[in-house]
Amino acid sequence: MQAVTIPEPGEADALVLADVPDPTPGPGEVLIDVVAAGLNRADIMQRRGFYPPPKGASEYPGLEVSGRVAALGERVGADSGLSVGDEVCALLSGGGYAQKVAVPAGQVLPVPAGVGLVEAAGLMEVAATVWSNVFMTANLQPGQTLLVHGGSSGIGTMAIQLASALGARVAVTAGSQTKLEACRALGADILIDYKEQDFVEQLREETDGHGADVILDVVGAKYLDRNVDALAVNGRLVVIGLQGGRKGELDLGVLLSKRAAVIATSLRARPSAEKATIVAAVRDHVWPLIEHGTVRPIIQEVLPMDRAPDAHRILEASNHIGKVILTT
Amino acid sequence: MQAVTIPEPGEADALVLADVPDPTPGPGEVLIDVVAAGLNRADIMQRRGFYPPPKGASEYPGLEVSGRVAALGERVGADSGLSVGDEVCALLSGGGYAQKVAVPAGQVLPVPAGVGLVEAAGLMEVAATVWSNVFMTANLQPGQTLLVHGGSSGIGTMAIQLASALGARVAVTAGSQTKLEACRALGADILIDYKEQDFVEQLREETDGHGADVILDVVGAKYLDRNVDALAVNGRLVVIGLQGGRKGELDLGVLLSKRAAVIATSLRARPSAEKATIVAAVRDHVWPLIEHGTVRPIIQEVLPMDRAPDAHRILEASNHIGKVILTT
Repeated sequence: MQAVTIPEPGEADALVLADVPDPTPGPGEVLIDVVAAGLNRADIMQRRGFYPPPKGASEYPGLEVSGRVAALGERVGADSGLSVGDEVCALLSGGGYAQKVAVPAGQVLPVPAGVGLVEAAGLMEVAATVWSNVFMTANLQPGQTLLVHGGSSGIGTMAIQLASALGARVAVTAGSQTKLEACRALGADILIDYKEQDFVEQLREETDGHGADVILDVVGAKYLDRNVDALAVNGRLVVIGLQGGRKGELDLGVLLSKRAAVIATSLRARPSAEKATIVAAVRDHVWPLIEHGTVRPIIQEVLPMDRAPDAHRILEASNHIGKVILTT
Repeated sequence: MQAVTIPEPGEADALVLADVPDPTPGPGEVLIDVVAAGLNRADIMQRRGFYPPPKGASEYPGLEVSGRVAALGERVGADSGLSVGDEVCALLSGGGYAQKVAVPAGQVLPVPAGVGLVEAAGLMEVAATVWSNVFMTANLQPGQTLLVHGGSSGIGTMAIQLASALGARVAVTAGSQTKLEACRALGADILIDYKEQDFVEQLREETDGHGADVILDVVGAKYLDRNVDALAVNGRLVVIGLQGGRKGELDLGVLLSKRAAVIATSLRARPSAEKATIVAAVRDHVWPLIEHGTVRPIIQEVLPMDRAPDAHRILEASNHIGKVILTT
């Protein structure tokens, strides 16, 4: 098969399409003929050599795909609900930029009704990330306020739609009016241009001093003190990215006075049993909203796999809204 | 009535016994004839002027008492389970160092069977603090490891007993062999002399590299980085005191790689509805263990109320094991 490989870490041209051996599904795994792969910022980190695949994962980049079931490994029975030929999407630990990929059956879901097979490639990682962090971990409730940094990103566009569908008030930060307008169209209530406005002040003003019950953050250290300032009483800050560094000052006095929490997580490194629990919750809670048309995949661009370097450049330029997808 | 007042913040002698007006129970409140009051470190902070009572609370120190119900306020009906003359203990927002105190009915429980009325004065604050933080917030499970800093304190002695009774493994830090032996007698499995040993290394060694699933911490900033190092994957650090300062460096990279959480809380500032929820959980989960003799009050010393300054000095000398109590 063909896969996008990383012979040496580097800039976008470090991604090289190559002929590689086909994967074989192990016990409990499913082999997928990949139709399309979703891009994630973690892929860029991996390409640069800063985010090695977890033990046992494919060495090729790509954390999510859509495609068709090509074969079932040992111990994948009827209870998996999967048959050869099914159109599916999958959450991976790696290896999505390829024509075939093997993945634990618990990380595979049917393509939601009404969604095209290519579009479906960009759903799993953002749905699993948002559902597990905002709803399972941080327990966002109807009527509460969610602040999403980078509202126009793949994760941002899913977070806005899901939180808004479930009755939360959504505040977003983004770096341009175009991006903020896209966020508004998806359901965001409070729009903050982080280049022009202080998000703590702006959020405080727009929530009558309440702040954010939950913050979904990809910036890390650079925003830590301001995120804690922006939290409401009983607030939960969930850090899922470290684009602004890892070490920051935490004022435990402020945190204690708010009875608040700072949580940092990642999806990729979790054991497959935890991923399966999350994927099952996504099927129960997110898939119905997609099938009813309440939540939809937001796609910036679809490119063929041999243009993986261009696809990475689009993500790195940060002018995109929603997901970038590669087709095999 | 008589109460211990703080005319001017200062050292232990700032505590002055004085004649003051009796409190009256408001709607939903109960008036208690106080028999004994438990001391807490927060009382010392308040005496020094660093921990003003929350809005609406009594200005006198004291966060817990035992005594007898003297009167029921409006809207305290039969569903409260309380009658005049009942022997009770109560969780307060303040005002415990006094002959009478008014408190919301939801913060009052019967004295557990088998416990003396004076001893019972030291149960509520520690039981509510440990249950709410270690079990409700941090969700400690049987088989998991709890690290308690200051294992011989009032909170420490309750945390060791409760966690151990519920099937967790308990590690403690303390500053002397005498204190550590007392912790062992209560059920602690891993004893760390923080003056002689590095608690991160020692815990790692004794748990085969696993670390602590939950840490209950009163030190704050000074221990922040080491506490994060000591956490297990999916670990929860709960900071309930800032004896070692409030601002510390947080390495979000380490936190993220562990998918861990830093939570900071306090009991005193919570609204009375939240306190009532906690007190009800204490009645359901902690009171039966006390009545079966599995968990018992650990008392260092009982002094009369006019010796409040001496009682504070005992707490400040930090040689005590368990609670210090004042009797009216």
